[in-house]
Amino acid sequence: MSTSPTADAPTGTQEHVLHRISEELAVTFDGVFGPDMVERYVFESYAALARTAKIKTYLPIITRRFARDRLNALAHAQGKRPSGVPEVLFVCVQNAGRSQMAAALLKDLTRGAVNVRSAGSMPAEHLDENVVTAMNEIGLSLGEEFPKPLTDDVVRAADVVITMGCGDTCPIYPGKKYEDWQISDPATMTIDGVREVRDALRARVEGLVSQLVG
Amino acid sequence: MSTSPTADAPTGTQEHVLHRISEELAVTFDGVFGPDMVERYVFESYAALARTAKIKTYLPIITRRFARDRLNALAHAQGKRPSGVPEVLFVCVQNAGRSQMAAALLKDLTRGAVNVRSAGSMPAEHLDENVVTAMNEIGLSLGEEFPKPLTDDVVRAADVVITMGCGDTCPIYPGKKYEDWQISDPATMTIDGVREVRDALRARVEGLVSQLVG
Repeated sequence: MSTSPTADAPTGTQEHVLHRISEELAVTFDGVFGPDMVERYVFESYAALARTAKIKTYLPIITRRFARDRLNALAHAQGKRPSGVPEVLFVCVQNAGRSQMAAALLKDLTRGAVNVRSAGSMPAEHLDENVVTAMNEIGLSLGEEFPKPLTDDVVRAADVVITMGCGDTCPIYPGKKYEDWQISDPATMTIDGVREVRDALRARVEGLVSQLVG
Repeated sequence: MSTSPTADAPTGTQEHVLHRISEELAVTFDGVFGPDMVERYVFESYAALARTAKIKTYLPIITRRFARDRLNALAHAQGKRPSGVPEVLFVCVQNAGRSQMAAALLKDLTRGAVNVRSAGSMPAEHLDENVVTAMNEIGLSLGEEFPKPLTDDVVRAADVVITMGCGDTCPIYPGKKYEDWQISDPATMTIDGVREVRDALRARVEGLVSQLVG
């Protein structure tokens, strides 16, 4: 039996980086979560992203951000570190188009007055290129975003969960508002189609803002 | 904004069942993992399965089994409750065919002398029907199995990780043996094709057994 690690996940190196990230986040969440819990979040976040992410180069970086955001969500949900602002979660199938656009639009319109997250039931390998282009055209960069699987913690943290095309994949908890938006999937669209989706989303997000922050 | 929970995930009820499962498993893992960690495993396991499982009826039952097995894997990996036997993990893309067949064959041949798990990088909605039939023909039931996403804990617990068609989606850790088996995907095959895959897998699994337990 031969040991045959794949080329871009060198034995031990990746693990070393993940341990370092765990130690750093254990300090960030000191008094909120124990180091064991933090380490589990880091390693499970890595495994969850590695399942679908095509390019492994940035995995440790996005693992760090994903794990930190999930821990923030959990800390908020459990009342240990409340964010003090409304929390909104957008969910679509691939977290490569609709939910990413909606999240970017809402972030831009509210600038910190609302905490915004997005996720997918079956995350894609990377963001849709036309989606990135269409958002760039209105001055919004998705360059640091990545498709993330839907997790329990981000649902728990949300006051409002907005689903688009992902059916009943989202856990339902009392005390939250669930909305389903009928928005076409831009995955197979030309750039013109994606622009229409973007503008339709902008209108809906503007409506949401007026409900959330008056 | 209207609250619109989906029909088969009644608000609160599902959550109540998950809390009960968490309490039960907290007793099972008393002294190994704290109740907070156990509860996280239960709820995240639920969210992970709900993302892809088509039929939600059995979700609490399979969530309980999935969470318990993941906690067992972690307890073994951390040396808190070593299983005392070799641990083998089979990984394919959908955890609906190849990895399920290989796991069932290895379990049957070793009957407790090896601990066997399986997982997928992109779990399917349910097991492949022809796969279930072909395994029934040799007296092995897959009736209680379900597609599960690949998680860090089961990789960590494994002495041997065998991948089939899932590329580099599996975290690589030192001290484990990784093998890649070239086995065709039965997903689009007729029952005759699936029988051939089953028999090819049986031969490879028999070879593995002789290496593991002599």
